[in-house]
Amino acid sequence: MRISPIHGAPFLSKGLFGAKGNGLMEMARLGIPVPAGFILSKEAFTEGSSALDRDSFQALVRHAMLQLEIETKLGFGQQDFPLIVSVRSGAEVSMPGMMDTFLNIGLTPKTYKGLARRLGESEDALAMTDMMTQLSKTCPWTNDSEDVFEHLWHALDLVKQSWNSARAHAYRTAHGISHQGGTAVVVQAMVFGNLSQHSGTGIVFTRHPLHGTPVLFGEFLPSAQGEALVSGARTPLPLSDVCDRLPLVHSQLKTIAKTLEQHYGDMQEIEFTIQHGTLWILQTRLGKRSAEAGFHIACDLVHEGLATPQSIVRTMEADVFTQCMHPQLVSQVGLEEIGQGLAASPGAASGLLTFDPSSLKDKTNYILLRPETAPEDIPAMMASQGVITLRGGMTSHAAVIMRGMGKPCILSLEAHQWKEDHVCSKHHLLYPGEMITLDGTTGRVFRGQGRVQNATFSSEGLKVLDWADGFRRMKVYANAETPSEITMAQSLGAEGIGLCRTEHMMLSPQSLPVMQEFILASTKEERAKSLEALLPLHQNDLYALLKSAKGQPVTVRLLDPPLHEFLPASQKSALSEVNPMLGHRGCRLGIHFPALYGMQLHALFSSATRLMEEGTRLDLSILIPFIMDPKEFQILKQQIQALKPPSLTCSIGAMIEMPRAALLAGDIAQHADFLSFGTNDLTQMTWGLSRDDYGSFFSDYKALGLQDPFEHIDPIGVGALMTLACERARARSPHIKISVCGEHAGDPKSISFFEDLRIDTISCSPMRIPSARFAAAQAYLEKSPHVLHTASSPFFNVVSS
Amino acid sequence: MRISPIHGAPFLSKGLFGAKGNGLMEMARLGIPVPAGFILSKEAFTEGSSALDRDSFQALVRHAMLQLEIETKLGFGQQDFPLIVSVRSGAEVSMPGMMDTFLNIGLTPKTYKGLARRLGESEDALAMTDMMTQLSKTCPWTNDSEDVFEHLWHALDLVKQSWNSARAHAYRTAHGISHQGGTAVVVQAMVFGNLSQHSGTGIVFTRHPLHGTPVLFGEFLPSAQGEALVSGARTPLPLSDVCDRLPLVHSQLKTIAKTLEQHYGDMQEIEFTIQHGTLWILQTRLGKRSAEAGFHIACDLVHEGLATPQSIVRTMEADVFTQCMHPQLVSQVGLEEIGQGLAASPGAASGLLTFDPSSLKDKTNYILLRPETAPEDIPAMMASQGVITLRGGMTSHAAVIMRGMGKPCILSLEAHQWKEDHVCSKHHLLYPGEMITLDGTTGRVFRGQGRVQNATFSSEGLKVLDWADGFRRMKVYANAETPSEITMAQSLGAEGIGLCRTEHMMLSPQSLPVMQEFILASTKEERAKSLEALLPLHQNDLYALLKSAKGQPVTVRLLDPPLHEFLPASQKSALSEVNPMLGHRGCRLGIHFPALYGMQLHALFSSATRLMEEGTRLDLSILIPFIMDPKEFQILKQQIQALKPPSLTCSIGAMIEMPRAALLAGDIAQHADFLSFGTNDLTQMTWGLSRDDYGSFFSDYKALGLQDPFEHIDPIGVGALMTLACERARARSPHIKISVCGEHAGDPKSISFFEDLRIDTISCSPMRIPSARFAAAQAYLEKSPHVLHTASSPFFNVVSS
Repeated sequence: MRISPIHGAPFLSKGLFGAKGNGLMEMARLGIPVPAGFILSKEAFTEGSSALDRDSFQALVRHAMLQLEIETKLGFGQQDFPLIVSVRSGAEVSMPGMMDTFLNIGLTPKTYKGLARRLGESEDALAMTDMMTQLSKTCPWTNDSEDVFEHLWHALDLVKQSWNSARAHAYRTAHGISHQGGTAVVVQAMVFGNLSQHSGTGIVFTRHPLHGTPVLFGEFLPSAQGEALVSGARTPLPLSDVCDRLPLVHSQLKTIAKTLEQHYGDMQEIEFTIQHGTLWILQTRLGKRSAEAGFHIACDLVHEGLATPQSIVRTMEADVFTQCMHPQLVSQVGLEEIGQGLAASPGAASGLLTFDPSSLKDKTNYILLRPETAPEDIPAMMASQGVITLRGGMTSHAAVIMRGMGKPCILSLEAHQWKEDHVCSKHHLLYPGEMITLDGTTGRVFRGQGRVQNATFSSEGLKVLDWADGFRRMKVYANAETPSEITMAQSLGAEGIGLCRTEHMMLSPQSLPVMQEFILASTKEERAKSLEALLPLHQNDLYALLKSAKGQPVTVRLLDPPLHEFLPASQKSALSEVNPMLGHRGCRLGIHFPALYGMQLHALFSSATRLMEEGTRLDLSILIPFIMDPKEFQILKQQIQALKPPSLTCSIGAMIEMPRAALLAGDIAQHADFLSFGTNDLTQMTWGLSRDDYGSFFSDYKALGLQDPFEHIDPIGVGALMTLACERARARSPHIKISVCGEHAGDPKSISFFEDLRIDTISCSPMRIPSARFAAAQAYLEKSPHVLHTASSPFFNVVSS
Repeated sequence: MRISPIHGAPFLSKGLFGAKGNGLMEMARLGIPVPAGFILSKEAFTEGSSALDRDSFQALVRHAMLQLEIETKLGFGQQDFPLIVSVRSGAEVSMPGMMDTFLNIGLTPKTYKGLARRLGESEDALAMTDMMTQLSKTCPWTNDSEDVFEHLWHALDLVKQSWNSARAHAYRTAHGISHQGGTAVVVQAMVFGNLSQHSGTGIVFTRHPLHGTPVLFGEFLPSAQGEALVSGARTPLPLSDVCDRLPLVHSQLKTIAKTLEQHYGDMQEIEFTIQHGTLWILQTRLGKRSAEAGFHIACDLVHEGLATPQSIVRTMEADVFTQCMHPQLVSQVGLEEIGQGLAASPGAASGLLTFDPSSLKDKTNYILLRPETAPEDIPAMMASQGVITLRGGMTSHAAVIMRGMGKPCILSLEAHQWKEDHVCSKHHLLYPGEMITLDGTTGRVFRGQGRVQNATFSSEGLKVLDWADGFRRMKVYANAETPSEITMAQSLGAEGIGLCRTEHMMLSPQSLPVMQEFILASTKEERAKSLEALLPLHQNDLYALLKSAKGQPVTVRLLDPPLHEFLPASQKSALSEVNPMLGHRGCRLGIHFPALYGMQLHALFSSATRLMEEGTRLDLSILIPFIMDPKEFQILKQQIQALKPPSLTCSIGAMIEMPRAALLAGDIAQHADFLSFGTNDLTQMTWGLSRDDYGSFFSDYKALGLQDPFEHIDPIGVGALMTLACERARARSPHIKISVCGEHAGDPKSISFFEDLRIDTISCSPMRIPSARFAAAQAYLEKSPHVLHTASSPFFNVVSS
């Protein structure tokens, strides 16, 4: 164990003293007024008990306390000039609120009067009484003993134990923080803002956290300690109030803010306390900001020379690009919150509640609520403002479709049950026709109409994205089918269409009845007739697709879902399967009904030929879904090649979405031009988890610290198969292109893993493209430490080691 | 290309000349009368066209024909003394009937009269006319030309092409024969049995093929060629007829039979032709025999010193041990065949057809026909004589259950449809109450009552099994739950119970209603009450299980299936899942309802304690199903350890049935005493194939040459994951026990793969135990070439290299 005084030369091994401790030492080094104290390095609290016996540990701490008494000219437990300290955890990675903190250690009935005198307060002043009351509540063990060192040992023990508390453990698991290491502890002399009018506490942001403008912004509570500000119990005053009351302190704060921002190269959020007119800084950290403020600040920082585009891309969170794109609920006035579910697709919307969209024909201002959704609901979902379901998880049908359309969606609305003509929970009944509002960003549902505002990218946001593109290796494509989706995707920076799900085209009002005819046909002749009728419709859809891509690469996937998904519920039974996810779907359909894929290929090639004749450039790929054996790929590749006009070039690829396809990726790669991971299905099969069903029990596993594998790619299971597949494919075909087109391709954490695999292209829903572009750049920078970048040029400079 | 004369010194590279060619050369070497001829090595027919130009090839063949003419003193195409030859394929591994054979090449309108004269026949004798007619039918190209060499080239070309015919390709794929290599070709002078009464053709077995007794057994057709015998167009005479007509030939046959049997060390099936009183041997091969004859012959051969127990175990087919155990249909008299399906569980049975077993209460002589079966049908299946379904594959529910009970079962009865009160195909209607017979060994269904005979092991069969046990490394356990199943399994040689599926216990008439109460309970208290009621029932079942194991190892698996499987169809909806196979099942139930596994453990431990107090020895293991993450195993292991009485020792193991569990087997093995592969589920997830649904389309894949992965383990997909899991598990825990308890554990081909993995224990349904014991021994011998064994002792001798 090591002990470092806050005001002293820091040890070199920075990690040992935690984020908070390092911040304090750094500020002290910069000459900023920080209360005296010392830091116990984290080994004390992980291996302490075994590495250091209790007596030695206490002797070291007593020695540090003695130094602190000398520095502060106060005595710990001393009646007339008592030293009062705080004991705070300080892990290497901040875990706000997860671990214990103890204030006012050293305050006892004996020292209390001395403290009052020292602070120039009456013994029974409100602040004194408050502190004593609170201490006896939060630290009841301080009532038992008059020995203040016992209090200190107790506080240190509890902080140590809180590292292993269930909530801290769950937080670390959820945020991917190591359970090793433990926490450092900061013991610091208390300063008191809860005294005269010349005292107080506040927080200052070095720039405006909502707008990003370069002005000090902050809040201040006179005569209060920090807890009062955090709890929201009292309404704070604006920072200008400090300027009025204590102009010298305000100007000191301004100087400190500038110093810290320049030192850290980013906007800071600084906690301060004023004790009898003296300013003390308690903490500084990266300031939280809105997405738009973040873009503004980033551009300013680069302009001011405090940051570079590269440092911005390395540090900004990719999720902000998704957050700021969706309509947002700007006011909850007049709304009654009636439940919460999974925030499956961000954005906010209001509309009339409906359970059955056919009852609301031609109306578009409705919110669709279903137990779950099916492909036959897609037209209603497209017309709706938003969707709520009572079941399903983050990658369920409803979530995927709504995210694709950029509309809000809330799944598994908790504790609500489906009844004939209403939906009910313990406290709320919901009837069709009611006006409701849903906030897909937070997962909350309200009764009433909320104020919703559309969001767009500012020029600063676009600039930051431009910087990111300069550092990116992976291409970012969109999953899209219709011209409007493609136009939106391209406006958001898509470099191609990585996945066109042709089944979505079969669900149009024109195509669906014909498709149903095909499925229910009992003879080959009837089937041929339906396909003949389907052909011109499919041709039109594919022509529109290829044309709207404007020469960008387009990957068309042949029909994938089980056929009964196209049937209305009443006619499903004939084709129903026990486990449709593992049933007659994907290229199994193509093998069974060669004429079905034949029709699709015919439609595709004739559309392509027409476009070429019209002078449109084409970059076409065909993707074969649900491959389980290289033989399937060979046979269908032959069919494609036999039907392809010789003048057309076209890549042919295999989806890797079955564990077996991953294991045999080498053999498949021998025949394929490219491979595309379908990470949803691969996750389902590797985990034995149905995305339609896992919502009912997976919360058990989250409680155990398991991550939802549909949200972020599972690196050790699914990821291990992907790694193996990439290795085997490249061993057989070194230059084969490999892409990811599952929902994970839009998730920054997963994108970081895909960079490890040197994936060539990621393809996600249009609304997730900006964050995917940014995340891909960030991943590249993170995995490529030798990238150099000059602040003035957003171009690409790689220097390898 | 090489050419070897049949009567000459053979080349050393035996594989090049095919099975048939080698047999002929071997017989010639032994002095057995074989018609003269020569063999073209197989390279001629694979690379021939590229390696050797056509002119050189023909020159070589012409040279060989010249030698043949000299040897036979006949001329090819010569008018007066014409040489007539057969051209036969001869691959390295025999593929009966799959490739082309041409007879009577050299017979033309010109040579025909010469042949007739040569054979002492009139030109228009029946045999001559027949031969000409048949030749012009089977080889119409012989009509076009008078150049007999053109006929020969044509025949050689067709034989070459037939190697790549679709049916030959499919056959090789189905039997795991390499597509490389090609076939050798035998060109041999024809001999004619279709002449005088002193001519004829026949087949002789060196021992009786049905009873195994050491007597010559055979059939003979006077004045006929071999084709007449094979086609069954004429009824043959017994071999004794040859003895009467041609006693010298008969005695010559006896000597040849003895020579060949001694030479090959096993019973032979010999084809012969008698031409004008002269005996010619055309082919010899391993004689086909009934299972019982096989045992008898094996014992005799060892007794006679012609074979050793090791050679018997190496060569006998393991499947015979399953075939001979089931009741067999001994006569089809009075039966009308009405359809065929998958032969899912062997044996034969007759009974009254029923669609709804409740209508036949207390009756047991019925055959149950269902679209498919569900766990709620198990009592009816147990009471039935056999089961037929209209859907499902080899490992579907019905197949697994019926195989477990050793009763016949036919699945996916082809082209039959389910109607309200009858089942129909194009040609047959089936109504409840009809007497029908099913033959689960062949998959055929008949109307009427067939003659069925029970089979048991003869003492010779037991002796052969005993020999096998001496060579076995893997232990063979049974999947069983009830005392009667366990007793049967032990009588068939089970060394333990490798899988007790506790869910089967919950399906008893007493337990099921209580289990249903538990599932449908809405409060924790109601659930606790149901579990309390279930406890004594489960205790009784587990007590009976452990007691009947008589000290053998028992592995009890905690509850595995999704809960709705326990509900009647009418109440399923509340719990129904889209993909139940990947749903809320296995240890997910244990994590969600700790009290459920708690009840099972309580019942198990109290039963075990009672038995220990009664002085019974216990060897208990607990198996946790459906593990997807090491964390699950740790938590449930803690629960088991917390409830386990300290006096009881008990291993705790994890099922590896998810790809992810296989990938993380190292981490799981760190905590587990043993691992057990559930190869059914592992196959479902690795292939993305639902065993309940794949029957509807997998025939497409069989036609492409893919093997059913539920029948034999898939070595490159599922097997690759198993290999990886074994490696990772043993790297972390070198002495961990690894077993297989899926249906594959009863399949000889899969067992051979498990020997490669050095699996410790295989556990299969009781009726498959004898063949599993034998297959395990065979696999061990095959993979361990340095095993030595003395004929006199059935014990284990290993000499490593």
